[in-house]
Amino acid sequence: MGAPLPVSPLAPASFPDLPVIQGVRFASAAAGVKYQGRTDVMLAVMDPGTAVAGVFTQSTTRSAPVLDCQAKLGGNADAGAAILVNSGNSNAFTGHYGQSSVAEITTAVADATGLPAGRVFTASTGVIGEPLPHDRILAKIGELNGSLSENALQGAAKAIMTTDTFAKGSSATVGIGGQTVKIAGIAKGSGMIAPDMATMLVYIFTDAKVGQADLQAQLEEICNRTFNCITVDSDTSTSDSLMLCATGASGVDATGNAEFAAGLERVMLDLSHQVVRDGEGATKFVEVQVTGAASDADAKVHGLAIANSPLVKTAIAGEDPNWGRVVMAIGKSGAAADRDLLSIAFGDVRVAEKGWVAPDYKEDLGAAEMKKQEITIKVDLGLGAGKATVWTCDLTHQYISINADYRS
Amino acid sequence: MGAPLPVSPLAPASFPDLPVIQGVRFASAAAGVKYQGRTDVMLAVMDPGTAVAGVFTQSTTRSAPVLDCQAKLGGNADAGAAILVNSGNSNAFTGHYGQSSVAEITTAVADATGLPAGRVFTASTGVIGEPLPHDRILAKIGELNGSLSENALQGAAKAIMTTDTFAKGSSATVGIGGQTVKIAGIAKGSGMIAPDMATMLVYIFTDAKVGQADLQAQLEEICNRTFNCITVDSDTSTSDSLMLCATGASGVDATGNAEFAAGLERVMLDLSHQVVRDGEGATKFVEVQVTGAASDADAKVHGLAIANSPLVKTAIAGEDPNWGRVVMAIGKSGAAADRDLLSIAFGDVRVAEKGWVAPDYKEDLGAAEMKKQEITIKVDLGLGAGKATVWTCDLTHQYISINADYRS
Repeated sequence: MGAPLPVSPLAPASFPDLPVIQGVRFASAAAGVKYQGRTDVMLAVMDPGTAVAGVFTQSTTRSAPVLDCQAKLGGNADAGAAILVNSGNSNAFTGHYGQSSVAEITTAVADATGLPAGRVFTASTGVIGEPLPHDRILAKIGELNGSLSENALQGAAKAIMTTDTFAKGSSATVGIGGQTVKIAGIAKGSGMIAPDMATMLVYIFTDAKVGQADLQAQLEEICNRTFNCITVDSDTSTSDSLMLCATGASGVDATGNAEFAAGLERVMLDLSHQVVRDGEGATKFVEVQVTGAASDADAKVHGLAIANSPLVKTAIAGEDPNWGRVVMAIGKSGAAADRDLLSIAFGDVRVAEKGWVAPDYKEDLGAAEMKKQEITIKVDLGLGAGKATVWTCDLTHQYISINADYRS
Repeated sequence: MGAPLPVSPLAPASFPDLPVIQGVRFASAAAGVKYQGRTDVMLAVMDPGTAVAGVFTQSTTRSAPVLDCQAKLGGNADAGAAILVNSGNSNAFTGHYGQSSVAEITTAVADATGLPAGRVFTASTGVIGEPLPHDRILAKIGELNGSLSENALQGAAKAIMTTDTFAKGSSATVGIGGQTVKIAGIAKGSGMIAPDMATMLVYIFTDAKVGQADLQAQLEEICNRTFNCITVDSDTSTSDSLMLCATGASGVDATGNAEFAAGLERVMLDLSHQVVRDGEGATKFVEVQVTGAASDADAKVHGLAIANSPLVKTAIAGEDPNWGRVVMAIGKSGAAADRDLLSIAFGDVRVAEKGWVAPDYKEDLGAAEMKKQEITIKVDLGLGAGKATVWTCDLTHQYISINADYRS
């Protein structure tokens, strides 16, 4: 990479104030894994009693840290837990050497923190296929463990960035029976973002008390409506990891609580949208609302076909209300559609209905809608009650520049 | 569109000399459907006894001409047949008006040629969702019918171009039992090119004698190895049509003949590659060879996942031997793979084997391979005997310019 990328025009104005989550402390350090002059390793250490849930990429070429995390999920929570994440190298497709790197790191973190290695989770993000220089990380574990702080979540969010142009955080505070629980999370992700699996690196913490099995089920369900409904470029990382840690330090049992679920979904939706807003080269944030499909699953297939279409995404980049390309994407999706029942709108401008251009549609109305920074594409199939919403960004010259003009 | 696009650097040196196919005559004209100062309509008229086979897009939003062609396939060959194609407007998603346009055009061609309307096939290619100004085409049918010539296939190839930067033709001459049959075909296509269906507009003619059912079966089988194995941008047209017309004028029965099948496959492969070579913005021609898969179907899924990956395609554009992105694409494809059995080569340079970087791989070897204009990516899954080859091009700034910077 050459000069730093400019911050996405879709970035939030600033990093949010995140509440302290009792029972978890953070630290970050500059290990020089690949990047120089910035932090690239974060450590989170959680108190005994913390339940850890996670969803991970389903890629058949997933990374050594992902395989290790999956093997450890559901383990005994009594001892507490730790998460160590590095940026700059994904430790993916690194064979047995990659597994050794994970073992060395988790053992060193266990030694430093007094946790069993079976409760130390890791993740690595960055270039695929290069051996991880894990010695550089090992050299920083003492420093990390010595500087843990309840107030260092923003620093952790910065340390895990790769082509991200801004750090991503979100939080919610939820009242349960007169008491309060807090949720705070961070994410990284900008390119190689596609749904159908967990997406990129996301860490969410809460002081609520929820058992591991319930926490895991809740995480998977909400993931299907949030992170599994975003796409930047249809390419799926080998490292995608989303972990949710409930320390229970509030003493408030949130198992099965609807307010807690809603708060968690707000945080996950916010973080997933921030990933789209930092999509490589993105200049437009696009919501695709599909209704009237034969099923919810069909609606999601149509939504993703639209959101992944290079021709739809370049039309949006060019502010071209080229709704014919939306028709094309629906047609190729493989899900049920009837041309003569199909309606399409850009924002509140109805562009097509019943298999043809809408009678009152004028090109300048569509063009005005496309000039906005946030664009909504509404598709009604006219077939049933199935619906889904997915989110994406446009496809611009900058995406090509980031991925072709620079050597990664 | 602004100024004409530069001719693709991957274009053949010149349009090939195509043999006369006895029993079919061609004409083209400038009807001004959308483009000015160029031809935009072609007519082909075939003698009685011509068998017509076709494969078409499976899009659920396919165009009115495609629906009309599909209804007419397999009809009585005794009367001969005609094909009329216009560029500049796809007559897709134009509702009942679109069907009326097809009826008016096929009736007018039938009247002029003396053929029944049920033997007049049409296709339209260009912008989706705008009513076809069919009166402009009707006004040219007399001129077209009056200027039919056995030698006008190249002119027909030019008339059906849209964002194509060169006209596409191919031919084969096949000996059968001491006699000779000829095959000649044309194609158009540059963007909105994805397999899984017939691809874009392709018309192939032969003077061999083959019954319609045999011709149709042969066309579908070869299409699965040629046009259904190419992709430019993963987007699938609403108008894709591939038609094969056997006039029988040579008197030579080619039914079930292996030489004829091989000749036809050469022509179809050549035309499909020419479409990739004219991929919007293409600077590299890429062959993806997948072997060792659990099945041929799995091999094709892996091949297309690689060929459709924006990150693989931008790496190729940037001449970056970023084989980690090939690993990523295999991992997300959904087909069976075992990371630790996987081998990858760029040309003759082995970059990865058995789940890790190849021991003798050096970055400069891979980089030299990527500087070539024609690149081969070889993937061996190590699982079974399944294999497939697919073809694509790179993803460049010019693709974005063609589809975003200009208004279509």
